[in-house]
Amino acid sequence: MKILAVDTAADSCSVAVADSGYGILAEMTVDIRQTHSKHLMQMVVTVLGMTGLRISDIDGFAVTRGPGSFTGLRIGISTVKGLAAGSGKPLAGVSSPDALAFQFPFADCLICTMTDARKKEVYCSRYRFENGRLKKEKEDQVLSPDKAVADISEPCLFAGNGALIYQKQIAEIIGRNARFAPLCMNIVRAGIVAQLGMQRLEKGDSDDVALFRPCYLRKSDAELNFGPKAVIIDNRFPA
Amino acid sequence: MKILAVDTAADSCSVAVADSGYGILAEMTVDIRQTHSKHLMQMVVTVLGMTGLRISDIDGFAVTRGPGSFTGLRIGISTVKGLAAGSGKPLAGVSSPDALAFQFPFADCLICTMTDARKKEVYCSRYRFENGRLKKEKEDQVLSPDKAVADISEPCLFAGNGALIYQKQIAEIIGRNARFAPLCMNIVRAGIVAQLGMQRLEKGDSDDVALFRPCYLRKSDAELNFGPKAVIIDNRFPA
Repeated sequence: MKILAVDTAADSCSVAVADSGYGILAEMTVDIRQTHSKHLMQMVVTVLGMTGLRISDIDGFAVTRGPGSFTGLRIGISTVKGLAAGSGKPLAGVSSPDALAFQFPFADCLICTMTDARKKEVYCSRYRFENGRLKKEKEDQVLSPDKAVADISEPCLFAGNGALIYQKQIAEIIGRNARFAPLCMNIVRAGIVAQLGMQRLEKGDSDDVALFRPCYLRKSDAELNFGPKAVIIDNRFPA
Repeated sequence: MKILAVDTAADSCSVAVADSGYGILAEMTVDIRQTHSKHLMQMVVTVLGMTGLRISDIDGFAVTRGPGSFTGLRIGISTVKGLAAGSGKPLAGVSSPDALAFQFPFADCLICTMTDARKKEVYCSRYRFENGRLKKEKEDQVLSPDKAVADISEPCLFAGNGALIYQKQIAEIIGRNARFAPLCMNIVRAGIVAQLGMQRLEKGDSDDVALFRPCYLRKSDAELNFGPKAVIIDNRFPA
């Protein structure tokens, strides 16, 4: 099974093509603080081109569903919805913090993912590997870095661009229990999104292309300023 | 400090640009079983182009020195030597198995890297993370997968394309002590090579551009068939 995977949930943007019998065929990641709409489709074309595959050779798509940046998630998810609908292939959403934590298999301690949520807050989740399997210990939250770590009293590995930004603050609060991921392992890689998506798609578990929505955790500024939308449209994708 | 890093030691090919204050700016990896000379320079141009940097903005170069494929290593190292000599910037060689093992920070067990060496052998090295630091436990060897694992009597995480190829055999020999890296984490990523190279270059530790040589571990077929070279030329690069 060949999967094309995309992540645009945070500042970084990553695209990969992977094969379930082989692993990564091609992967490209950038973290250059530009809007993802500027380069995402070009990255899809480049990555696919390097594998010598066409979009019709892809058996399914995976995309991170957040929590993360409003605009970032919309760009990635819209693009992958288009690719899935256009090619008639299934789509599997993958949790962004799951993909970040999955980079640390067999880590011997608590894992806390922290992605910058602006407004002095972070998207924060907690995990642990048990017998090689990633277990979520706490649901995704958006809160201040201080609150995110206040109850941690054991060694904990922090990963994500939020952990980099608030590294000093975290170390001040939890002291020697704080461990930090290597500098180059704080962003989501689409190769890992592909593997997690593949695990769902191989079991026949996919998301409805039309109904699939990003996970934002908090309301957008527009919703906060102008209240909820008056009309809910049933936009189920015609079979 | 901005580093451009390259890995071509095995079947995969990876290029990254990273910043010591930020992490990965751009990274591209392919594993498509084509000779690296076909796409390496194009990947360098693409990755550099995505960051908006020029080669003159790069402060240093990192490249994997093996052990690994003869042709692969020559292509990557020749290219990076050219870039370093042409731009007058330093070069730091990085051990290929170090870069593979560094992907598993805080792993709670022995780590055994295994890269396919053809001829039913693997390049094999052993590591352990101690207080978050990667410690090499055994020097690089090239041997059969059976011999490589024969003395392992504790939980061990296997990573690398050799571990994928010989997964069944390894599991048969060491049973439940065998753990395997996720499918998408069996290749060297240039982002990690950049980080390890950066650690050397920031301390002013670099390799002589002319004298730097790949680590092959075994002799090439040409050397085995035709004996050692008669003449050693001192090819020190002019200052």
